[in-house]
Amino acid sequence: MKLLRYGPAGHEQPGILLDNQAYGVPGFGHDYDEAFFAGDGLARLAAYVQANAGQLPQVAPGERLGAPVARPSKIVCIGLNYADHARETNATPPAEPIIFMKSTTALVGPNDAIVIPRNSVKTDWEVELAVVIGKRASYVDEADAHAHIAGYALHNDVSEREFQLERGGTWDKGKGSDTFAPLGPWLVTPDELADVDQLRLWLSVNGRMMQDGTTANLIFRVPFLISYISQFMTLLPGDVISTGTPAGVGLGFKPPVYLQPGDVVELGIDGLGTSRQVVQAYAAS
Amino acid sequence: MKLLRYGPAGHEQPGILLDNQAYGVPGFGHDYDEAFFAGDGLARLAAYVQANAGQLPQVAPGERLGAPVARPSKIVCIGLNYADHARETNATPPAEPIIFMKSTTALVGPNDAIVIPRNSVKTDWEVELAVVIGKRASYVDEADAHAHIAGYALHNDVSEREFQLERGGTWDKGKGSDTFAPLGPWLVTPDELADVDQLRLWLSVNGRMMQDGTTANLIFRVPFLISYISQFMTLLPGDVISTGTPAGVGLGFKPPVYLQPGDVVELGIDGLGTSRQVVQAYAAS
Repeated sequence: MKLLRYGPAGHEQPGILLDNQAYGVPGFGHDYDEAFFAGDGLARLAAYVQANAGQLPQVAPGERLGAPVARPSKIVCIGLNYADHARETNATPPAEPIIFMKSTTALVGPNDAIVIPRNSVKTDWEVELAVVIGKRASYVDEADAHAHIAGYALHNDVSEREFQLERGGTWDKGKGSDTFAPLGPWLVTPDELADVDQLRLWLSVNGRMMQDGTTANLIFRVPFLISYISQFMTLLPGDVISTGTPAGVGLGFKPPVYLQPGDVVELGIDGLGTSRQVVQAYAAS
Repeated sequence: MKLLRYGPAGHEQPGILLDNQAYGVPGFGHDYDEAFFAGDGLARLAAYVQANAGQLPQVAPGERLGAPVARPSKIVCIGLNYADHARETNATPPAEPIIFMKSTTALVGPNDAIVIPRNSVKTDWEVELAVVIGKRASYVDEADAHAHIAGYALHNDVSEREFQLERGGTWDKGKGSDTFAPLGPWLVTPDELADVDQLRLWLSVNGRMMQDGTTANLIFRVPFLISYISQFMTLLPGDVISTGTPAGVGLGFKPPVYLQPGDVVELGIDGLGTSRQVVQAYAAS
């Protein structure tokens, strides 16, 4: 299945993609949140969709998409998980995964604007494969990790490099601004992906290809990451893990290139769809 | 007011402390969560308590207390915010606040057990003043920060030093294990504290005083912290900020001293009550 959420920000409705058409699931009665995943929601949704085939309302073409999951308890991110990206940032590939956390208030829809934070001059992009947890994970063995996966989604791990690297403390400071986590368009269940370790992922800015990588180059792969993170914290159903970005971020250019108001960021992963964000300056509301 | 939550873990009921006696507020109908704080819940609770004076049910003396707030969207912590603690860990006092994040799955009641994670040998304690946000905070000026405070609570920012400092990546890895955030006993509204910058805070292990500090020694004070964090991420009602720990953590001893199963940790802050955690080894459930 390909799950999606549509409607105004903060008032999204659950839906589903069938043959490239988005449909609502108005009688299903559950948002895609922790309780949904914990309560075997994917199986119940599949049954609902089958029982209502041909009767689901189409989502209008211009409708906004939200993130395909409701606000999770946490967004756990992995740093420097592609050797080429580690090189471009002058970092040594890590001996074990680097974990940091993104404020969940950063979560937005796949085609929402990226807002450059006030006083930011180094807002950067990072196309990433995100994993959504389907089942509580604590001290999970790598061999059992697949049972804890609800699905995969496209994620732009937007990052402010000065906040992240030059302001003291941990990377969290440069990762959690509002709009810094465009997720989606869809949550794609594992049965729909032939091989999650062979997905092309790419990102362009104003039509210029900046990142063009493959998940084959992940240093630490998804089952290992789930097992690893679950040694340090409990992952809840609906939680998001973002697995790191390949080479081609703005920080890696000489001199670095950062996002400016009006820039158009487009990104995609094989089988997970594409997203598009227009960059805006911060404006007090 | 002093707000509390009582009952089995995951099924806590809201309550209140009046003249050192805990009472339930069964007709109030709201847990102390984001919607409660966002919807002027403190004022509505005060009105409810006044209207039902003398009729509230007493909480039984042996009843478990939960954290005084429901699971927040995030727990933001400040590192090295007391000069004496920075010194004992051989760190330079920071030029601006160090921010890291604690997984919200770490949150437990004030007198729940601290479980040493699997493979942990360096589980440590940190008594801290925590602030609970009452009103959404984004780019807040320091002078306006007080309007965003719901209240204060006692927090033990339990930390695994090997996970935090020796395993690569950010501090988040050593801060988010289950039971690593005993919070409470109460959420105390600001009107009940004479001066939040003059509170003694202390922590003992097996009766031996380990930390004995005062919030007068905070490098960065609460209004500044709220303003500062809100430049990097939006704080939601119910979110928790933990403001850092004074000297006397296990890491600071020569040689270091870490928690062992059976140890009893007791801590307190003037006006915010005390808490007590018994340390347990991890046991697979």
